[in-house]
Amino acid sequence: MNIAYLDHAASSWPKPPEVLQAMQENLLLNGSNPGRGSHQMAVQASRVLFETRKSLAKLFKVKNPNDISFALNTTMALNQAIFGFVKEGDHVVCTAVEHNSVRRPLELLKRTKGVAVTYVKTNAKGELTVNDVRDALTEKTSLVVCSHGSNMLGSILPVEQLGELCKSNGVKLLVDAAQTAGTLELDVARMGIDMLAFPGHKSLLGPQGTGGLYIAPELDLVPLLHGGTGSQSEAIEQPAVRPDRYESGTQNTVGIAGLNEGVKFVLKETVERIHAKEWKQTQTLIEALMGIQGISVLGPDLGQNRTGIVSFTMNQTDSSEISFILDQSFQIAVRAGYHCSPLAHESAGTLEKGAVRASVGYFTTDEEIERLISAVKEIAQYMK
Amino acid sequence: MNIAYLDHAASSWPKPPEVLQAMQENLLLNGSNPGRGSHQMAVQASRVLFETRKSLAKLFKVKNPNDISFALNTTMALNQAIFGFVKEGDHVVCTAVEHNSVRRPLELLKRTKGVAVTYVKTNAKGELTVNDVRDALTEKTSLVVCSHGSNMLGSILPVEQLGELCKSNGVKLLVDAAQTAGTLELDVARMGIDMLAFPGHKSLLGPQGTGGLYIAPELDLVPLLHGGTGSQSEAIEQPAVRPDRYESGTQNTVGIAGLNEGVKFVLKETVERIHAKEWKQTQTLIEALMGIQGISVLGPDLGQNRTGIVSFTMNQTDSSEISFILDQSFQIAVRAGYHCSPLAHESAGTLEKGAVRASVGYFTTDEEIERLISAVKEIAQYMK
Repeated sequence: MNIAYLDHAASSWPKPPEVLQAMQENLLLNGSNPGRGSHQMAVQASRVLFETRKSLAKLFKVKNPNDISFALNTTMALNQAIFGFVKEGDHVVCTAVEHNSVRRPLELLKRTKGVAVTYVKTNAKGELTVNDVRDALTEKTSLVVCSHGSNMLGSILPVEQLGELCKSNGVKLLVDAAQTAGTLELDVARMGIDMLAFPGHKSLLGPQGTGGLYIAPELDLVPLLHGGTGSQSEAIEQPAVRPDRYESGTQNTVGIAGLNEGVKFVLKETVERIHAKEWKQTQTLIEALMGIQGISVLGPDLGQNRTGIVSFTMNQTDSSEISFILDQSFQIAVRAGYHCSPLAHESAGTLEKGAVRASVGYFTTDEEIERLISAVKEIAQYMK
Repeated sequence: MNIAYLDHAASSWPKPPEVLQAMQENLLLNGSNPGRGSHQMAVQASRVLFETRKSLAKLFKVKNPNDISFALNTTMALNQAIFGFVKEGDHVVCTAVEHNSVRRPLELLKRTKGVAVTYVKTNAKGELTVNDVRDALTEKTSLVVCSHGSNMLGSILPVEQLGELCKSNGVKLLVDAAQTAGTLELDVARMGIDMLAFPGHKSLLGPQGTGGLYIAPELDLVPLLHGGTGSQSEAIEQPAVRPDRYESGTQNTVGIAGLNEGVKFVLKETVERIHAKEWKQTQTLIEALMGIQGISVLGPDLGQNRTGIVSFTMNQTDSSEISFILDQSFQIAVRAGYHCSPLAHESAGTLEKGAVRASVGYFTTDEEIERLISAVKEIAQYMK
């Protein structure tokens, strides 16, 4: 039996065939690294990075592609944003559904730099009230960090309203688009986003090892990495010019060549259509799961807007036990546990046993959804 | 005409066919990311990382593969080592031929953390005297940073003697193996290396976007990235367990799958044979270039040990002009400029016009060497 892959929130799979093709071509024809010399292969490698920046800029409505820098993953992008922006004594507001890639950097700044952090709670469904964020702002608040979609509850957070709030309070907004880049509209200017961290290997359909950070042109961050940039080699300081300032060392050219094809695929399909398809499948899944005795579905109510994530618990059963059975006996790939978001589990009341997380992606078939539903039905029968 | 690729010090090309094959397989069959769930595809992804760690451990004679963590590139590995180890008020000794990925982090620490840095000069050929490093040590010295091979002059630095010196002075040794991992023996225990930063895409023959850092088990560094590790999700601090401590977020699994094949290729060929082949070709090149009027060859003398790098200057001509002609009129790919090592150029007296750097790799043919020699002869004729 084929695997039913319902773990798109971790990594999308499969990828559009063009992604592999571009990576192949890049590795076979285009060995050199960009920006470090003038020969044709190096120029070609530079062009791959620039073309991908242009595609991403088109998707996120970024005016200047050079305001986007590449990173190994979203974690690196978020670390660049947080460590590069937050200063000693600042106050930062973030939500309680943030991933550890936001929480752990902030907790480190708390311990080492006297930074104060307020975690604004969501309701148990992962929904955030903008007024609660407003109430958390102080005179020292320099930054609000918010995920666009919860990686556990599937809720969509009101980024646009936060953008307005931040703007009118002179506070910057960092958005973690790990769960939404490629499936929800992101328009950095209209939504008031000052920094946007995104993965390449999830809904942008590129390979692992890719991702990046948009940084508004008026911001100047302390670079996370200092090193060779090809430009201004003789300077002892990291150059100010973008994207060099935030991209030291050889980039993942072959992965980025693949990412460009993923982004182009998304641009062609449009995020609206992709989201509509995923939403329909999540609704089918939620409705069916709600009808199974012993199952509690987490996140926003049926009919509400959400990302492709559907997490659930089953009676008193440990989530890892359920996902293990789904994997071993049904060839269905989902995730169990805490999804690096312990505070989200605290909000949802699932800190003890974790939750099973199913997540759909662009290539998810209705048949895969049906297989998960009937497997959960069967497991629930004998877990009663 | 085919391109004559003589830029292996920037990135090796082509790669062994197994590298692409492994990446293809990984992307097609194995979409998930490792360490974040229990389903079979995620387990398979974890295994790819572990197998690659094992191959690297075999190559560098590292006892526990988990003491090796992956990074986007050598720059990231060096930044992890330097920012993670050096403390306020420390003194660091490094050589004047270090890459900007060592110099710029150290200069930042100088400006922001009161760290003192001594640059020990090499001779004009890039050769280092161990006694000069000994003389630079103070009571506050915590770290010596040394590249194993100069990325501009091709000289090999006496890492093993530095290891002894450091050990007997209670100082740690960080080695930048950007130009030697895969072509020179590296035995971390015997050579007294406490931290070893290496690229995946140069002589290890893997793809761009890969590299890593060996950290001796008794060292505890402040992680460069803080975030999701899959382990101890509920903890607000980065876990202590390796490699998780130094590997936050999704790794470049597809690239690492390719890297494993590159490393296995090197293990099979042996670094001794690879180095012998490269040395022979560099000697041919040096001897011929020395016979051309107006050409000055940089780095160690003919007959001396060196890496696959041969840099040269031509009369008063700017290096970028020469490399441009080589590229446009002869389809020969070399590098020009400063190679991110301004102090090395100061030592060699080439700070004004830079140098042309040719560099050979495992797949370099004798015919490519001949093409470069005859092209330089021709250019030197009309540049007189």
